[in-house]
Amino acid sequence: MYWKSQLVVDLAGGDGLGHDTLTGTFSATKGVAAIALGTLIRSGALDLDQTVVHYWPEFGAHGKERILVRELLSHQAGLVNVDDGLDNEDILDSRRAAPKLAAQRPHWRPGTAFGYHGITIGTFMEELVRRITGQSLQGLYEESIRAPRGIDFWLSLPSSQEGRYEALRPAQPTAEQLAIISQSPMAPDSLGALMFNGVNNLVPPNLGPYSPNLREVRAAGPAALGGIGSARGLAQVYAAAIGLLGEALLDSETVGEMGQQQVWGVDRVLNFPAAFGIVFMKPHPGSDFGSFRAFGHDGAGGALGYADPLYDLSFGYIPLQMQLPGGADARALHLSQTVRSAIRQS
Amino acid sequence: MYWKSQLVVDLAGGDGLGHDTLTGTFSATKGVAAIALGTLIRSGALDLDQTVVHYWPEFGAHGKERILVRELLSHQAGLVNVDDGLDNEDILDSRRAAPKLAAQRPHWRPGTAFGYHGITIGTFMEELVRRITGQSLQGLYEESIRAPRGIDFWLSLPSSQEGRYEALRPAQPTAEQLAIISQSPMAPDSLGALMFNGVNNLVPPNLGPYSPNLREVRAAGPAALGGIGSARGLAQVYAAAIGLLGEALLDSETVGEMGQQQVWGVDRVLNFPAAFGIVFMKPHPGSDFGSFRAFGHDGAGGALGYADPLYDLSFGYIPLQMQLPGGADARALHLSQTVRSAIRQS
Amino acid sequence: MYWKSQLVVDLAGGDGLGHDTLTGTFSATKGVAAIALGTLIRSGALDLDQTVVHYWPEFGAHGKERILVRELLSHQAGLVNVDDGLDNEDILDSRRAAPKLAAQRPHWRPGTAFGYHGITIGTFMEELVRRITGQSLQGLYEESIRAPRGIDFWLSLPSSQEGRYEALRPAQPTAEQLAIISQSPMAPDSLGALMFNGVNNLVPPNLGPYSPNLREVRAAGPAALGGIGSARGLAQVYAAAIGLLGEALLDSETVGEMGQQQVWGVDRVLNFPAAFGIVFMKPHPGSDFGSFRAFGHDGAGGALGYADPLYDLSFGYIPLQMQLPGGADARALHLSQTVRSAIRQS
Repeated sequence: MYWKSQLVVDLAGGDGLGHDTLTGTFSATKGVAAIALGTLIRSGALDLDQTVVHYWPEFGAHGKERILVRELLSHQAGLVNVDDGLDNEDILDSRRAAPKLAAQRPHWRPGTAFGYHGITIGTFMEELVRRITGQSLQGLYEESIRAPRGIDFWLSLPSSQEGRYEALRPAQPTAEQLAIISQSPMAPDSLGALMFNGVNNLVPPNLGPYSPNLREVRAAGPAALGGIGSARGLAQVYAAAIGLLGEALLDSETVGEMGQQQVWGVDRVLNFPAAFGIVFMKPHPGSDFGSFRAFGHDGAGGALGYADPLYDLSFGYIPLQMQLPGGADARALHLSQTVRSAIRQS
Repeated sequence: MYWKSQLVVDLAGGDGLGHDTLTGTFSATKGVAAIALGTLIRSGALDLDQTVVHYWPEFGAHGKERILVRELLSHQAGLVNVDDGLDNEDILDSRRAAPKLAAQRPHWRPGTAFGYHGITIGTFMEELVRRITGQSLQGLYEESIRAPRGIDFWLSLPSSQEGRYEALRPAQPTAEQLAIISQSPMAPDSLGALMFNGVNNLVPPNLGPYSPNLREVRAAGPAALGGIGSARGLAQVYAAAIGLLGEALLDSETVGEMGQQQVWGVDRVLNFPAAFGIVFMKPHPGSDFGSFRAFGHDGAGGALGYADPLYDLSFGYIPLQMQLPGGADARALHLSQTVRSAIRQS
Repeated sequence: MYWKSQLVVDLAGGDGLGHDTLTGTFSATKGVAAIALGTLIRSGALDLDQTVVHYWPEFGAHGKERILVRELLSHQAGLVNVDDGLDNEDILDSRRAAPKLAAQRPHWRPGTAFGYHGITIGTFMEELVRRITGQSLQGLYEESIRAPRGIDFWLSLPSSQEGRYEALRPAQPTAEQLAIISQSPMAPDSLGALMFNGVNNLVPPNLGPYSPNLREVRAAGPAALGGIGSARGLAQVYAAAIGLLGEALLDSETVGEMGQQQVWGVDRVLNFPAAFGIVFMKPHPGSDFGSFRAFGHDGAGGALGYADPLYDLSFGYIPLQMQLPGGADARALHLSQTVRSAIRQS
């Protein structure tokens, strides 16, 4: 992690995981993609208070013409999937998924609830970047952010880096963890199941629970789940965002806008407490990953990346051994709390 | 229940309950009334995005002039009762109740919360139908929906059918059920008590907990609670709605609009989790009665009716022996889950 | 407490507490200040549906130009503090705090959440009164409300009354109470901690947990926490508000507007259930202090004041021995329920 322009902690350990090991990060990818998107907010090319149809006219079907960009990017649009499910090609290529989502009726009245758009928020980020710049989000990230700084986190991993990839290891939940999970089972035909693309026999299966282990996922690097990196690389992106590595990618106005809480409460899709800014997760009593000014994102396997302007801190954590239940694992939160406490006492 | 144009399950049993027995359904009535109302949405006579005052000018008092029809019909208006309570005549005749509600100040800022309008949402449906068509909702239902199809579910039961009525039997809660109920007692002067018209000594008592057993309730057939039918009849109405019995009463656009979730979360009046579309209940983690596309309504005694376009399925369940706590009883939910699982595996 | 123009209960007891003892009331002060503010709503000088910038132009920074007065006064503005924390002088003098808050970016998108603005809602009330009348809220209260009626509750306690002040005694929580508190610890860099002005080492400490025991707090009498009075005095203010002591300070239209619930649910800052009207707390299942028509406010030490138009009742309760957890203490709620039950049966 980075504190005031310096790499202050760079830990790696465990079987197979070294400082230069790359592995999958699932939804922690969304925070990295959001930083790329944020450069368009900073430049004024993307206005959060505009309607989505301003940038993407086809999006307006079924009463979606009034949805604002800020609502779309904070899980409020009610477009967690298409009714028939997205297929694997759609998930890997947002140019296929975007028109299907544009034609979908929202599952809830937009603006009246929020619920995790685990896959589709990636499609939305990618489509907005494409509509505004003509470029892919992955290309924008590579050219404007990663390559100039040599950041060790990739959206669309090149073949040349494949040798550094170490496969994620499936979670081996304890009895206690299984008990927690079984307390809120998700009905197989619920909105939650639809979000995970898993309505049995009725929509196609998705890429499976270890998708970053598939080369096609790493090569495409979808903004929702396909980011590959080292923990240091994840911390680097957030450090670059708030100016711990030279000029900040996002100025304080953009950080303020994106880090402002847009929604909080019980997530309609996952049915547990959550809080979001623009794409980024915000800390809340159920996940105190940073101060009230922090913004970041965790991932299904336990990864966590964030920046915390209160402390001039950036943080990256990526486990090789996946943990259950999903989201930032307990070790990540504990490490974050310890570091912040140390800074407060310094 | 109906599946793809066929009556596939038609069960009846227990002391006094045969295939042709009619009994009371309490709030499951609301779903049937909503289907009648839906024919006006389909024809364009009723626009969910219009203000209520567009159809009912007197409604605008005390800052209600901006309430939309969709908000009024999804428990968001904050008009759970009038402060002095509605009397029995008001509940049986919406022409008396409507002007009183039009003059009432909302108990919450409209649009900022939702809470079950257990009785008054029936008044609202009836008044809208009357304002738009000049006809009663009961008459619209009889002429356009029930009579042409011989559906065995009645809003305003004629004398000729009275011989088929079997009285509902009061709930005999177990110690465990009583314990659940006593966990969230409702203060006698709370908004919840007001909704049930029971603020002690301060507002008149309502029709009592077994109101369908009163002939005047069956004869009036109020849209909130007075529907009388057989389980097959309840399934028939929903089958007709989505086209399992000839041409659909509601086209896919109307089903999409009415089945879209308008609110979800903790109900302000009942203080437990709920989700509503336009009048219809939507499945949620606390009541997974159907898939994410299902829409229906349960009733205080345990009844449940719904249609589920994902499965081409309609469902009706009416117990003679009332159950506690209210809402769809556990057997209804179990039966629904079993059927849906069987279809997924077929 | 007052019922139908009469002082019907006037209890005082325990070591050091007599009928004429004055002590601190913490946030119960907010209800008294709201009654003063309400006289401006009644006269039309303050319109709840106006924007805040209409009265306070500098407030509009960082996207706050569309916040309505009713949102600002119901904990929806997302301005629980300034990022660097308010200092003691700011808390004692709203002319210092107001410009800092006007320049602050809201911590959440205004209107999308609510959370207790424990200190800043006092600043907002004071600034609005100053902008509209040129007078301080304390002066308005003294001249228009307290002095003409000889009410024994003070915002800005004069030296001449100091001899009647008895110091609040720190809470001595039981093991059970400590266990309840420890169930939801507040992270030291969370939004909740920021609200209490306690982000360790990063913002200045506030006035401490027994602030009414400081003479400078009593002398300033800030609207958020500085009210000093007897229980009878607190009941007198609410009695005057609804007309139990001569002509009502607030007419039924103003009572209706201010007593209408604006928000309800889980408080974003304190993370427990709450409901608010305009400044006033509303009863809810977690705190049934009055009927659905009641409006009032409790305080950190256990105090409670409210008026309940359903019963023509006003109520004041102020303990000398502070209780934990904060808010109306169990004895206050029990006493309120007993009285209301007695009136219903009378």
